Amino acid sequence: MKYKRSMRIILMTEHLLSKPNVNIPLTYFAERFGQAKSSISEDVQILKETFESNGIGLIKTSAGASGGVLFQPEVSVAEARLVIDSMCSMLSDKERLLPGGYLFMSDIVGNPSLMHDVGRLFATVYQHERIDAVVTIATKGITIANAVGYAMNCPVAVIRKDNKVTEGSTVSINYVSGSTRKIETMVLSKRTLKEGSNVLIVDDFLRAGGSINGVIHLMNEFKANVVGIGVLAEVKGIENRLIDNYVSLVAIEDIDEFRQQFTVDHGNYLTHLQANK
Amino acid sequence: MKYKRSMRIILMTEHLLSKPNVNIPLTYFAERFGQAKSSISEDVQILKETFESNGIGLIKTSAGASGGVLFQPEVSVAEARLVIDSMCSMLSDKERLLPGGYLFMSDIVGNPSLMHDVGRLFATVYQHERIDAVVTIATKGITIANAVGYAMNCPVAVIRKDNKVTEGSTVSINYVSGSTRKIETMVLSKRTLKEGSNVLIVDDFLRAGGSINGVIHLMNEFKANVVGIGVLAEVKGIENRLIDNYVSLVAIEDIDEFRQQFTVDHGNYLTHLQANK
Repeated sequence: MKYKRSMRIILMTEHLLSKPNVNIPLTYFAERFGQAKSSISEDVQILKETFESNGIGLIKTSAGASGGVLFQPEVSVAEARLVIDSMCSMLSDKERLLPGGYLFMSDIVGNPSLMHDVGRLFATVYQHERIDAVVTIATKGITIANAVGYAMNCPVAVIRKDNKVTEGSTVSINYVSGSTRKIETMVLSKRTLKEGSNVLIVDDFLRAGGSINGVIHLMNEFKANVVGIGVLAEVKGIENRLIDNYVSLVAIEDIDEFRQQFTVDHGNYLTHLQANK
Repeated sequence: MKYKRSMRIILMTEHLLSKPNVNIPLTYFAERFGQAKSSISEDVQILKETFESNGIGLIKTSAGASGGVLFQPEVSVAEARLVIDSMCSMLSDKERLLPGGYLFMSDIVGNPSLMHDVGRLFATVYQHERIDAVVTIATKGITIANAVGYAMNCPVAVIRKDNKVTEGSTVSINYVSGSTRKIETMVLSKRTLKEGSNVLIVDDFLRAGGSINGVIHLMNEFKANVVGIGVLAEVKGIENRLIDNYVSLVAIEDIDEFRQQFTVDHGNYLTHLQANK
């Protein structure tokens, strides 16, 4: 098959977008399209200009034998604001308020297209760090972690509250839940996380921080280094929060269960994004 | 900004790929690029030819006021074979065998790039049906469901084994686990699935079928119509399996715990795919 330039740039766009943060050797494209590397380099240049001037992400090229081309999704401040605004408006529905001051969020984490965007948002902030794995807690953190892991090209390790035969040998810790003050257990399969990994922790909801603090303790057992913490939503105005260094997309404030009221606003994400740029 | 054709087709490729199974009005592109609809239609034609002749997927166009362009990921038999082959070789590692004849699969479902491919595989088979939601069981089905839901533009509903305050009001059933014969509970939040939905059930591992049979019963409570069942791996040679109509990517056979042996082969996916074409 003869590949015209228009065809080549469509196929290269598809290949790079479907493999974010993966280095693709130029020879891969040269062989696939039966073209000289110099033509492929010109194609890459068109992609680079288009991606970077339109807020899709960065195209990084490296020379030499192991060289190639790599796509990093990168959202602009404007796009991040749109995604967070839409989450804020979804979350503002008063019907979401549950007993105990929790918010119903299963439909948010069960929205794969929104999670895809959330993955790109967190990748934009964290992909320049060396991160080996994204760690989360079952159940609602999993789709977030999967989306972040996809955008960053990292495996996902899922911590459970129970021990299952399908996990193989595990490491567990006990921790005190920040909200209920009950003692709970966290379990992580040994095989899902290499000792000494650099990890990004993600979760859906941050209140007192008991669960994430538990994850941090469990990470110590794996000699892992916690590089960052990202949450979809944080509750503001919590005294004695157990963790203080995190990135949140949305902030929930002034929860009044009696009046069925609360307010939803941006979290600290845009501040972190702008500091990164 | 002036958008040359090369730029437009890159940006249209990006937009369509990031929103599979979403109808994009031609006016969206016409306005974004400041071009006549006729030019946009020519761009779409280039995308269509390239996508369809290179196994990326289908580009469907519709005319009229609500008309537009829609991308459906569609894997070729050759690509599906490659993905399944690579899963087979990952799963063949004898170290995966766990007590009770289970296989360790957390790293497989924790591989977001592989899950992305798995999502496209199942979408290729099921996207032509009218499906309103992808339903799965916590924990290991979630990344699969999220990937399938993304490719098909469907929300994901996650069934849990426990009831949590964050789920709001729920519907639950009891079922007998096919493997352990124990009575267990399944819980689904009422708000995550509309009554009367057409659902696709996905899960990681199919043995006796007790869990999926439980899901089917729970779906009855939601008056849902089960359109299909997709699993990553099935164990072959199970007598009295509770379900018989499913699509599996991989089949595990001849598990011999004493000798630490088993064989891994293709499931029935390719047969279904070829029947579809």
